[in-house]
Amino acid sequence: MLYSLIMAGGSGTRFWPMSRELFPKQFLSFEAEGPLLARTIDRVLPLIPEERITLVVGASHAAETRRILQTMNEGLGRHPRIIAEPRSLNTLPAIAVAALSILREDPEAVIAVMASDHMISPQDNFLALLQHAAQVAQNEKVLITFGILPHRPETGFGYLELGDSLPEHSTGLFSARRVARFVEKPNMETARRFVEDKNHHWNSGMFVFSAPVFFEELARFQPEMSAALETLARALGTPDERREIDRFYRTTTPVSIDYGLMEHSTRVWSLSGPIDWKDVGSWSALDDISEKDGRGNVILGNAVVIDSDNTIVRADKRVVAAIGLKDMIVVDTDDATLICAKDQAQKVREVVGQLRERNAVEAMEHRTTHRPWGSYTILDQGPMYKIKSVTVNPRARLSLQMHLHRSEHWVVIAGTARVTLGDQEIFLHTNQSIDIPKSTRHRIENPGKVPLIVIEVQNGEYLEEDDIIRFQDDYRRMEEEPGLDRSPLRNPAP
Amino acid sequence: MLYSLIMAGGSGTRFWPMSRELFPKQFLSFEAEGPLLARTIDRVLPLIPEERITLVVGASHAAETRRILQTMNEGLGRHPRIIAEPRSLNTLPAIAVAALSILREDPEAVIAVMASDHMISPQDNFLALLQHAAQVAQNEKVLITFGILPHRPETGFGYLELGDSLPEHSTGLFSARRVARFVEKPNMETARRFVEDKNHHWNSGMFVFSAPVFFEELARFQPEMSAALETLARALGTPDERREIDRFYRTTTPVSIDYGLMEHSTRVWSLSGPIDWKDVGSWSALDDISEKDGRGNVILGNAVVIDSDNTIVRADKRVVAAIGLKDMIVVDTDDATLICAKDQAQKVREVVGQLRERNAVEAMEHRTTHRPWGSYTILDQGPMYKIKSVTVNPRARLSLQMHLHRSEHWVVIAGTARVTLGDQEIFLHTNQSIDIPKSTRHRIENPGKVPLIVIEVQNGEYLEEDDIIRFQDDYRRMEEEPGLDRSPLRNPAP
Repeated sequence: MLYSLIMAGGSGTRFWPMSRELFPKQFLSFEAEGPLLARTIDRVLPLIPEERITLVVGASHAAETRRILQTMNEGLGRHPRIIAEPRSLNTLPAIAVAALSILREDPEAVIAVMASDHMISPQDNFLALLQHAAQVAQNEKVLITFGILPHRPETGFGYLELGDSLPEHSTGLFSARRVARFVEKPNMETARRFVEDKNHHWNSGMFVFSAPVFFEELARFQPEMSAALETLARALGTPDERREIDRFYRTTTPVSIDYGLMEHSTRVWSLSGPIDWKDVGSWSALDDISEKDGRGNVILGNAVVIDSDNTIVRADKRVVAAIGLKDMIVVDTDDATLICAKDQAQKVREVVGQLRERNAVEAMEHRTTHRPWGSYTILDQGPMYKIKSVTVNPRARLSLQMHLHRSEHWVVIAGTARVTLGDQEIFLHTNQSIDIPKSTRHRIENPGKVPLIVIEVQNGEYLEEDDIIRFQDDYRRMEEEPGLDRSPLRNPAP
Repeated sequence: MLYSLIMAGGSGTRFWPMSRELFPKQFLSFEAEGPLLARTIDRVLPLIPEERITLVVGASHAAETRRILQTMNEGLGRHPRIIAEPRSLNTLPAIAVAALSILREDPEAVIAVMASDHMISPQDNFLALLQHAAQVAQNEKVLITFGILPHRPETGFGYLELGDSLPEHSTGLFSARRVARFVEKPNMETARRFVEDKNHHWNSGMFVFSAPVFFEELARFQPEMSAALETLARALGTPDERREIDRFYRTTTPVSIDYGLMEHSTRVWSLSGPIDWKDVGSWSALDDISEKDGRGNVILGNAVVIDSDNTIVRADKRVVAAIGLKDMIVVDTDDATLICAKDQAQKVREVVGQLRERNAVEAMEHRTTHRPWGSYTILDQGPMYKIKSVTVNPRARLSLQMHLHRSEHWVVIAGTARVTLGDQEIFLHTNQSIDIPKSTRHRIENPGKVPLIVIEVQNGEYLEEDDIIRFQDDYRRMEEEPGLDRSPLRNPAP
């Protein structure tokens, strides 16, 4: 059986200010077709049903990942499984842990590893490629990589140096070759040579292998990690599980699958074929995927652009006016604006670094935060107060909760709210309001069929999100801890 | 007696997004020393007390002008008089109407006409220049202009072509010459020649003359306007006043003082001397007045600037990140951002034009609006609701008012409010709230000593500012209409 293992790491720096530490690239929608993560899942669904899809995410991204899945799969009973890593150890440990959890379900599983934030088309060819790769991987007991024929000298990717052709494993669409060597990101001169010699393909970072073969090679080249995984495997489903997961993530050395496994193995083959693959790595790469006007500009949102060329302007709600820009990137969000020369887009990381040093919230998260029940936006804050606009989806409710350090005041702007306050239950309609004193159990619910919008005014000396005691939660967030989520998720997702 | 006539027109386009139609350049603070208008008044105060200062402003700018005066002159009993023009007719009619109002008070008045948004230093020299100009203007019955020796070829200003020297009217500091001709904005070649020949000075747009001489020349070169002013003069103080003001502004042809008067008169002299005069005409001119870092950047506010040169970044509250910019201008405000090549700064007008065509509020006003009692900021709005943060200054109160189309809900965030609601008077403290139903008289007052901050949630089908019926107002805004404000203003200013 073919399984999909989707790697959804990401630190949220390269696409700042649209990405944030808590909202990395896989959550972004670049062409209004939904988040990259959702598109990655949709792409494989015809071949690999959701119950055979595993996502590996950072613990701080698990909630948003679940929310996106919930949006995608409305009405479906099962969801991809999610492994929330307490700490990122690079790709090899992440793949190994996920493969372990798949192996427990299907000892002969064939696993297709892919990134959550790549763009791949056409879908038919890609699915055919996965199918062929799965067959070869299983029959020949090899590790399959997907090489992409480079059409430009690219210094931002690793390369595969290809060896012998394998005509007996090629098809009309896909050609198979042995991989002679993994090559790290080259300089421009070398990259130019690679484009010409036709013997070097981009390493797409996707792999297909059977679980037993993967673990065989892991045992050979990473015996320590392999042993640690065996210990972990024995603990799964026992009272020691949590402790062993923690231990694994505390003691394992970070290493990439390329560096830790693929480069050493002699059983690596490559398949390539008519696949359009894009790893949009920075704002400047957006040029490759966007519609341009007659002067080469990509203009989105509430923008006024005058006498500019080859410039990307992504406005949102605010007005952005650009005059006389050449080869620039302008990205505007609620709380931050980036203006960047295209050829220096990689320095966005430095901006995020400086913001982190200042402890600026703009490095961490957006002004609007999504929750399983809806979303909230911080409208204003100052000493002793914070004002939020809270949207509760129809039939959804927040947890039954209490705050020790703040009182709240709610005004209904649209829809109808059912409010629990202590032992009371109160219905509030548009323009009605209620006071929620400190240390009082309360809950807000939208019993209706249209979104409920509430303005929440908070008062107190401490106004952070972690001043919350939850008594009951439809989304089980009281229990939420990083770790292996081995059973298919409940619906609605936690 | 010497009077000052300060021209505070301005359409608010050149410094967008900091300037708006309702918040033009004279209200801006470029170096944290207060609005240009206030600095203009402060500059002449040692020589010309406020009761001899007249401001000519557009009717839509009158309230903000008064607010700035109020801030400046706290504790003083009298204010400059304000003439609020119902329609802008360029400089000559504005000066003529103001001169008329001054003439009624002092038939021998000597008037110094100046712009509200120029930067002039040193103050001592400028005041000495005004004094000397006043003396010469009165004794010799001439119109005095101030010429500025050009230190660069400038195509953005008009020039004075100078004639005979007048050594008997020169002093150690200032030299007097006849003006041979007024020259319109030249091309670059001509401007270069002007810098070399030393016979051309920049026309600073300032004038000093006695009222009788001005009206003599006006009668000679603008007989129609002169006649209309005589009719207007007879009506002032009579029941016909309002009608005649309206008629004057409806029927008079717009014309500048240069074109309509100065170019024709043979009685124009020029004074020049050690005065640093700047008419900051666009964002790019800001370079002349701002502190730069080692790479020529001017960086203000919450900005992260990386590898940029000769760039102006004016951030405010939001984060602005700039990478790899050269010779650019970035100006960020709450609701709009401008990014502009320095050499194309004059095209900001086009941006404002496009926004006006879209009826975008961002062309018109800022998200925060100042009022005599404090200010309010629109935090969010949507169909049927609007949320404002309202700040009421200590001891100030809003008008006693009523709305027909909206109910309001107030939550106190800081300070203490005294609320009038119908016949009730209620004190509200932090985190207390009150509902204000439609069609109910209400008022909010800050009886305390610290600013009162209230969150106002409005609900209704119509949420514009003009849904207001005022019953009593400390600032007499019920009576406010454009026109001549001949008596020194009441305190606090209306």
